[in-house]
Amino acid sequence: MDTQQIAVKIVLDRWFGLINNFEKTINSLTDDQLQKEVAPGKNRGIYLLGHMTAAHDDMFRVLALGDKLHPELLETFIMTADKAITEMPDAQELRTKWNNVNIALTEKINSLQPADWFAKHATISEEDFANEPHRNKLNVMMTRAGHLAYHDGQMALLKA
Amino acid sequence: MDTQQIAVKIVLDRWFGLINNFEKTINSLTDDQLQKEVAPGKNRGIYLLGHMTAAHDDMFRVLALGDKLHPELLETFIMTADKAITEMPDAQELRTKWNNVNIALTEKINSLQPADWFAKHATISEEDFANEPHRNKLNVMMTRAGHLAYHDGQMALLKA
Repeated sequence: MDTQQIAVKIVLDRWFGLINNFEKTINSLTDDQLQKEVAPGKNRGIYLLGHMTAAHDDMFRVLALGDKLHPELLETFIMTADKAITEMPDAQELRTKWNNVNIALTEKINSLQPADWFAKHATISEEDFANEPHRNKLNVMMTRAGHLAYHDGQMALLKA
Repeated sequence: MDTQQIAVKIVLDRWFGLINNFEKTINSLTDDQLQKEVAPGKNRGIYLLGHMTAAHDDMFRVLALGDKLHPELLETFIMTADKAITEMPDAQELRTKWNNVNIALTEKINSLQPADWFAKHATISEEDFANEPHRNKLNVMMTRAGHLAYHDGQMALLKA
């Protein structure tokens, strides 16, 4: 493996490891447990499941991998706080959407070659990227991995 | 920047970003707030502060950067669960140890050159590393970054 391949493997291995952890967490929780707040007065599990699904669905756009599968989630789970949501989708629906997004995103991620990860992501201009070549697709995976770990730590608190 | 420099920058930028987030979280919490459980029946903030300090203190060893500053933390905060701790250090002491570890670790991290990050870490044999060259020091930063984000998500729940 060359440096580029190694760097990509390190980041993607961690990404898939964190995805696996999060899936274990949500699969260990019942729909009723998901309705609970992760801590008193904080987000409910079901909100975090919707939030993660919406955030990862947005990665198709940022990584230039295609269109969102469930664009309707953006307003509810990114632009609205849990307490302000008037109509919460049910847990089964969100579990299905999480799976849809994750399966499709995994397929796209696995279709990229190492060099593709060092190309610019979709929300930076060519001009800025010329000056800041670290703002590439691999960097998107880094920030999204941190976001996933952060909320997995919270979701895990719902386990008995 | 070449590929190696870019890869290292991506990972270290995220590391320092997560460190910054965690420091903002603990600095926003009073010593009394740290005594609270992050969720009912779960770890206290003060335990997580000790746990993160001990985990990062152990990185000197894993990254072959020198000796632990506070080896006494290992037994309390890595090998013992919060509920089983009989003598909890006070919050001020742990804040000081966190700072000591973080300042020293940051200095060591900043002293490494990009190529150093692609060398093997201290807990893998030369033989295994020859077959698995992704098990390098940069990979250690990846797993530790995920760990940090996970617990920051929990610590943040103590904020009012």
